[in-house]
Amino acid sequence: MINIKRLCARIDELAQIGRVEGTQGVCRLAFTEADQQARDYIITQMKGLGLRVAVDRIGNVFGTRPGQADLPAVMTGSHIDSVRTGGRLDGALGVLAGLEVVEALNENAIMTRRPLTVAVFSNEEGARFQPDMMGSLVFQGDLDLQAALDTVGIDGISVRESLARIGMTGAADTRDMAVYGFVELHIEQGPVLETLGRTIGIVEGVQGISWTQFVVEGTSNHAGTTPMNMRTDAGHVATRIATFARALAGELGPAQLATVGALTLYPNLVNVVPSRATITVDLRNTDDASLSEAEARLSEFAGKAAAQEGASLRQTRLARFAPVSFARHIMEKVEQSAAKRHLSTLRMPSGAGHDAQILARMCPSGMIFVPSVGGLSHNVNEFTNERDLDAGAMVLFDVLYDLAMSPFGTPVRCHSAPA
Amino acid sequence: MINIKRLCARIDELAQIGRVEGTQGVCRLAFTEADQQARDYIITQMKGLGLRVAVDRIGNVFGTRPGQADLPAVMTGSHIDSVRTGGRLDGALGVLAGLEVVEALNENAIMTRRPLTVAVFSNEEGARFQPDMMGSLVFQGDLDLQAALDTVGIDGISVRESLARIGMTGAADTRDMAVYGFVELHIEQGPVLETLGRTIGIVEGVQGISWTQFVVEGTSNHAGTTPMNMRTDAGHVATRIATFARALAGELGPAQLATVGALTLYPNLVNVVPSRATITVDLRNTDDASLSEAEARLSEFAGKAAAQEGASLRQTRLARFAPVSFARHIMEKVEQSAAKRHLSTLRMPSGAGHDAQILARMCPSGMIFVPSVGGLSHNVNEFTNERDLDAGAMVLFDVLYDLAMSPFGTPVRCHSAPA
Repeated sequence: MINIKRLCARIDELAQIGRVEGTQGVCRLAFTEADQQARDYIITQMKGLGLRVAVDRIGNVFGTRPGQADLPAVMTGSHIDSVRTGGRLDGALGVLAGLEVVEALNENAIMTRRPLTVAVFSNEEGARFQPDMMGSLVFQGDLDLQAALDTVGIDGISVRESLARIGMTGAADTRDMAVYGFVELHIEQGPVLETLGRTIGIVEGVQGISWTQFVVEGTSNHAGTTPMNMRTDAGHVATRIATFARALAGELGPAQLATVGALTLYPNLVNVVPSRATITVDLRNTDDASLSEAEARLSEFAGKAAAQEGASLRQTRLARFAPVSFARHIMEKVEQSAAKRHLSTLRMPSGAGHDAQILARMCPSGMIFVPSVGGLSHNVNEFTNERDLDAGAMVLFDVLYDLAMSPFGTPVRCHSAPA
Repeated sequence: MINIKRLCARIDELAQIGRVEGTQGVCRLAFTEADQQARDYIITQMKGLGLRVAVDRIGNVFGTRPGQADLPAVMTGSHIDSVRTGGRLDGALGVLAGLEVVEALNENAIMTRRPLTVAVFSNEEGARFQPDMMGSLVFQGDLDLQAALDTVGIDGISVRESLARIGMTGAADTRDMAVYGFVELHIEQGPVLETLGRTIGIVEGVQGISWTQFVVEGTSNHAGTTPMNMRTDAGHVATRIATFARALAGELGPAQLATVGALTLYPNLVNVVPSRATITVDLRNTDDASLSEAEARLSEFAGKAAAQEGASLRQTRLARFAPVSFARHIMEKVEQSAAKRHLSTLRMPSGAGHDAQILARMCPSGMIFVPSVGGLSHNVNEFTNERDLDAGAMVLFDVLYDLAMSPFGTPVRCHSAPA
C-alpha cells in the first residue's frame, strides 16, 4: 500500500523549508516564517488529498478524511517545528507518513468506518516558547489557551503575536472533538534499535522525568595551605553526588537512567578549593515508584555527602513528569502488524517527550519507533534508512486501518480542560 | 627589642599605597604606579635607617646595614607587590619586619659581625607577569634577566617597559653577591596555626607541586534516549577522577594534598550526556617520592577510568615543582628563639610559594610563619593579631642576630646562572 518513494519525496520537499545551509537539517522554530511555510506546504498537501482542514486557535492543523459514519476519529500525526539545528525527520515523519496513509487509502478507494485525522501539533519542541508540546497540551486541555497565547519566547515575542504575524490564528474550536485513538510514528532518537538490529520499536510509554539541581556551598581555600581535614570543598560534594547518581542507575537496573549533564564550580581555578558547586541530575524511569525511589535515595545521599563535608546544600526540583503508559491494544496492533510483515520488534520506552504522551491523557494512544542511525537526534545529520521508513509507514498504515475499521464502542473523550 | 607599635605603624602606612577602596586590602600589581610608590616608601625608610640601598636590573631593592667585617651578608625580606585584591600583610610583613629588626639593632647600637640586608624582591605574586617569584629567580640566577625583561604582562606591556615607566631599572649587578643565609617572615596564609593554637610556624620547606589537566572526550547523547550501557560520558570519567584524587590524599597521609579546583563540562546542559570534560588536579607533597607516587597513581586511575567508559583521555602536566627543604640549622634557631620566648611552635610545610624557596637554591634559607586569622589569604581581609606579629618579628630578630653574629665559615654562593 505504502509508496515509500512518494513519502521520501514529501520528506525531501518539506526539508527544503528552513533548511540549514549546507546540511540535510532544518531550522523551523515554532511560529516563525519557516514554520508557517511548512504549515502551508502541509495544508496544500492535505487539500490535495481531499482532507477537510481545520486550524485551531493555537495553530494546530487537523486534516480529516471522512469515515463511513460520524464516529470519533482515529488520529495520527506529530509536529513540523524543529530545534535550531534539527533533523528532517523528527516530527515531520509522523505527519508525512500520516498523509501517505491517507493517499494509500485514497488510491485503493478504501472507505474506513471512522474518520481519519492527520494532526500537526504546534510547538512540540519548546525551543522558542516554553513549555514544549504546547499545541497538544492546549488541544488536550491541560494548558489554558490564553496562557499559551500569552507565552513570551526567547526573542521577547508572544505566541499570540507570532501566530498573528504568520496569519495562523485559526478559528476551529476543538474542545468537543472526540478521538478514538492516537498513533504517532517517530524516529527513535536513540541508539537502541540500531544497536540491537531491530526495525520496529513498540513504544510502551514515556519515561518519567525528574530533574534536580543541587547547589553546594563550601569554603574557598588555598589548595596549598589548607590541610585536607580542614576543607569544606563544595566541588568534592558535587562530584560525589555525580558518581553516586551513576552507581544508583546501575543498581536500580536498565529502566533507570541518571545523567549529570551540568556541573559548574566556583571560582573554578586550579589552585583554589571550590566554594560553590552547582550540579544537575536528570533521572528517568518508566516506573513511577522506581523513579521516586531513585529521587529519594539521591536526595538522601546528597544531604549526607554535604553534611560529611560540613557544606550546605540546596536542592531544587527543576522538572517532574510522571511516566506515561501507552494503550495495550495499540501496542498489540503494532506487534501484530510487524509480525505479519516479518519485521523485528522491540518493546521499549520513549526517552524523549512526544505529543502522543499528551494525547494519552484523553484517548488510547501509542507510538511506533523506527531506528535512528547512530542514535543521532536534534542534529542536522539525523537519518533513518529508507527501508526502515517504509517499514514504519506500513505498520502505521496497518494500525490506523485497524483502528479506523474497529466496530468497538467509542471511548468518551476525556478532555481535562475546565468546563 | 622589637617595637611592635612602630612595625604596625609601618604596615599601616604601606597599606595606604594601592589601598582597595573601602577595605583593609591593597592592589599593588608588580611594576605599576602603586608598586613604585611602595618601593619609594621602602627606599625612604631604608635610607632613614642608614641602609645602603641598591636596586638591580629587575628592580629588586636591597638595603644593607654594614657588619664588622666584609663577610657575606645575612639577608631577610620578601615582596611588596600583591594580587589584585590582596591583603596588607602578604609579603609586606617580611620586608617591614626586616626594617624593624634593623631599627632595633640601630637603637641598641649593635654592630653585627656580618652585614644584614633587607631585600624587596620584584613580582613575587606573578599576578601581572609570569612566572611568579620573578625577582628572586633573576637574583638567584635560574631566570635569565633578559628573558624576564622581555616578559609581557596581562595588559600587553613588557617588564622592561613597565620598569622604565616607573623609573625603577636599577644598575646594581648582584651576580657576585654572596649570601650567608636568608630568613623570611610571612603570614601562614592557611588555617593550621590558628586552628591548633600555635604562634610560630617553623617552616620545614615548601611542598612540591604537580598540576595536571585531564581532557576527557566522550560522546554527546540524549539523556532520555541513551541507555546507560551505551554511553561514553566524559563527565562521568572526570567526576571519578575527582573523587579518586580526594581518596588518594586520604590514603597517602596528611602530607599529601589533592585539589580539584577546576572542572568544566561541555555542552553543560541538564539533559545532554557531556561529550567533553576538563578537570585539573593540584597535587602537593613535601616529599618528592610521595608526590611522584601520587602522580603515577592518579594518572593510572584516570587512564583506567577513561578506558572503562570508552572515552579518550589527554593528560597535560601544567606545572611541576620539586619540594624544597629549608636549612636545618635555621629551623633550629627558630625553634630555640621561640622556646626562649615561650612561644608555641609547629613544624610545618609551606603550601604556597615564597621567595625563600628560590633563595634556598643559593644559600641556607628558612621561613617563620605567623597565624592567619581564618586562614584567609589573597583576600582584602587578611589579618594577623598584633601579638602574633610581635612574636614573629621577635623570632626574626633573634634568628637574624644569631646568623649575623655567627663566626662560622662562609658558604660559597652557589649562583646557578650561566657564567
